[in-house]
Amino acid sequence: MATIVFYSVNKTAHTAARRCLTSPLKGLASAGESVSRLASTHSRSVPLLPGTRWFSRGTGVRFMSHGTAGRSGNTRRGALALSGAAAVTAAAAVAGFLANTDHFQRAEMATRVPRAAKETGEEADILQRCRGFMSPPVTDISVLQGNKDEMRTKMEMLIMETQADFCKALEKVDGGEFRVDRWKRKEGGGGISCVMQDGKVFEKAGVNVSVVFGNLTEEAAKQMRSRGKVLKGKDGKLPFVAMGVSSVIHPKNPHIPTVHFNYRYFEIEEEDGTKQWWFGGGTDLTPVYIDKEDAFHFHNTLKEACDKHHPQYYPDFKKWCDRYFYVRHRGETRGIGGIFFDDLDSPNQEEVFSFVKSCAHTVVPCYLPIVYKHLNDSFSDEEKDWQQVRRGRYVEFNLVYDRGVKFGLATPGSRIESILMSLPLTARWEYMHEPAKGTREAEMLDALRNPKDWV
Amino acid sequence: MATIVFYSVNKTAHTAARRCLTSPLKGLASAGESVSRLASTHSRSVPLLPGTRWFSRGTGVRFMSHGTAGRSGNTRRGALALSGAAAVTAAAAVAGFLANTDHFQRAEMATRVPRAAKETGEEADILQRCRGFMSPPVTDISVLQGNKDEMRTKMEMLIMETQADFCKALEKVDGGEFRVDRWKRKEGGGGISCVMQDGKVFEKAGVNVSVVFGNLTEEAAKQMRSRGKVLKGKDGKLPFVAMGVSSVIHPKNPHIPTVHFNYRYFEIEEEDGTKQWWFGGGTDLTPVYIDKEDAFHFHNTLKEACDKHHPQYYPDFKKWCDRYFYVRHRGETRGIGGIFFDDLDSPNQEEVFSFVKSCAHTVVPCYLPIVYKHLNDSFSDEEKDWQQVRRGRYVEFNLVYDRGVKFGLATPGSRIESILMSLPLTARWEYMHEPAKGTREAEMLDALRNPKDWV
Repeated sequence: MATIVFYSVNKTAHTAARRCLTSPLKGLASAGESVSRLASTHSRSVPLLPGTRWFSRGTGVRFMSHGTAGRSGNTRRGALALSGAAAVTAAAAVAGFLANTDHFQRAEMATRVPRAAKETGEEADILQRCRGFMSPPVTDISVLQGNKDEMRTKMEMLIMETQADFCKALEKVDGGEFRVDRWKRKEGGGGISCVMQDGKVFEKAGVNVSVVFGNLTEEAAKQMRSRGKVLKGKDGKLPFVAMGVSSVIHPKNPHIPTVHFNYRYFEIEEEDGTKQWWFGGGTDLTPVYIDKEDAFHFHNTLKEACDKHHPQYYPDFKKWCDRYFYVRHRGETRGIGGIFFDDLDSPNQEEVFSFVKSCAHTVVPCYLPIVYKHLNDSFSDEEKDWQQVRRGRYVEFNLVYDRGVKFGLATPGSRIESILMSLPLTARWEYMHEPAKGTREAEMLDALRNPKDWV
Repeated sequence: MATIVFYSVNKTAHTAARRCLTSPLKGLASAGESVSRLASTHSRSVPLLPGTRWFSRGTGVRFMSHGTAGRSGNTRRGALALSGAAAVTAAAAVAGFLANTDHFQRAEMATRVPRAAKETGEEADILQRCRGFMSPPVTDISVLQGNKDEMRTKMEMLIMETQADFCKALEKVDGGEFRVDRWKRKEGGGGISCVMQDGKVFEKAGVNVSVVFGNLTEEAAKQMRSRGKVLKGKDGKLPFVAMGVSSVIHPKNPHIPTVHFNYRYFEIEEEDGTKQWWFGGGTDLTPVYIDKEDAFHFHNTLKEACDKHHPQYYPDFKKWCDRYFYVRHRGETRGIGGIFFDDLDSPNQEEVFSFVKSCAHTVVPCYLPIVYKHLNDSFSDEEKDWQQVRRGRYVEFNLVYDRGVKFGLATPGSRIESILMSLPLTARWEYMHEPAKGTREAEMLDALRNPKDWV
């Protein structure tokens, strides 16, 4: 999983958490704050903002407090060396909390004043859209409203929406509910991890959003830019924003494939104010057994989304995906691929964002029809065992090769649980496991050893 | 698992394998050859060398043929860059096979002549000792007999004996039988992997021996030597030998801990014939629950072995072990440690070997009493789940940090199954798993987060 996971908590957040005990709504309102479960439970007894989903999820929402600080990252720039990122100042953090408090005071008011009076124009649009999210966005809503035309706002809204749409679709088919954890990064930003574990349909489903910012050193920025551009920072520092949504879904039934997707955006500001930006992402499928119809549906849905933007996108990004998700020591791909791209910054920001939006919008239509199709498929112990062996390979890819995971684990203070939520609930390693010729297991392996064209 | 696993097959071996079909005993006799299972099965119908265990194991012995070539390595010199190792010449390989054939012609004769006539002196001693092994040693027995005073011979005999003693002890308690796979490395040497999977007591038990040799470039040799010595090679090449025994045992019962050990020896020859050599190794325990008596027994057995050689060995190597087996991203050690050392080359070769021998001899007495003690312990589903979560952490250490595994996976053509036989049969990852305070699970975690002195 090409995760972007940054995590931390600071003293201000702890203070804020304590404040919640006396003013739970304000406390919850502070986007990114760590709030104790007591506060969260407490909050259920106060009037809730109508239509704001995260206020009505009861124990499904957990505001968390942790003693660690750090982050992780992704992109094929393995050296997204955010160790060079400077922490935001304490003053800025406090300002953030004040802004949050201010916003939610207004949000609270919204429950008492006529809707029309508050919700007009694009500001209202952002507030309205936020009501559908799993949790308030990482960035304070008033900040998003104030910068509604900036790409970082558009992208944060897109990743929050993608998280919510996907989580809701999964909850609907499973009947279970996502646990929602908010976390903060000391140096700036935070994230929202949604996890459903041991559900009826899903063994483990994780959908993570992160929005992090801070400063990179010139050296770190250089390492980030793989295309050799030297970036000039003010006093050697380059402000950056990195955000993304990433997900891995491991179903219980071996006839329902695992899916992974990740869409992300980076922005670095140079000394003269020039902004370097690029997008990355992809969606890929890891079945336990080959179902050609599923493979066609999955790839074709992606192809149609790509074709709307450029005829070369699908063929190029399909190949890139097969290359990226390659378990070298096994000589096999992780799954049957999909699309993968990085460093995308042309023809222009709006057009690339439009492409990324098309991709993000395919997540549900790519995957859910396959889930429903196999929902009641019966399976044998042998099929479950083969699923478990394939889960082992999934773990191997994620722990050995995935750049996001590697970077995250190597970075002190990362929110490990958000990085490793991509791992299956259970996995198996059998010595010298090799399916007999002519079996469906051998057919699967053949597709992994010789990537195929599915459309 | 600090594994040394090199693997390959060459055309000569394939030819030899084919030869076996007409002369199975000779074919099997060639140490390190790849022989088809047909040949192996065939061999059971011909007269067997009395007392030679590996000839009487039936399907327990599998001589394997693979299409890949390569190797892996260990040591804290992460850069044991054997990519620089030159392949042995085809002529040398052929000579090796001839020597093997010659030896086993003699071995075959041994079944027809009175024992006393053949088995006198130290040559007979080596042959006799080989009869107790799981499989013929990697190096041809006649070569070992001809170089009986060399350290590489003494060490190969020790690691083969350690493998056999441990495997036999485990078979006795389990009732199952080890599968024995021999494999060859194209560039020189090979190995013997013994694996028992899904036994009565053991979920997965792997005991691996490897003996590899070839040439290192000066650059690779420099990277191997962490203490900054520059080694001069003849025409830039330095002949080397690396050998070791390594093992990981994962029992089914959560009250029986996992054990790992590894003992290894390196030798590099300089231009003027000077030999640089060093030993490394260690034994460590990974329980699922703390049992102070077990911990004391395990550490004390190691301490007594160490104390016979140097009073600083146990305290120093105990600390080194805690440092090495540290899962940084979890902030916890893999288990409750034991001893770990590397680069050991003083006071002299005989004394270090004697120490390593003492350590190797503690493997069975360290571990087996603990296995017997808990053999019939009952356990709950919750205890089994906790074991599975700990198994997940074991996988994390082995795939993310273990230098041997990392090096092996990064090296094209490694024998992956021998490297990854250290992984458990089953493992589990639960999101945000944290044992409740005061539980035995929390007690275990505390010991992993704060390494203790057990003796």
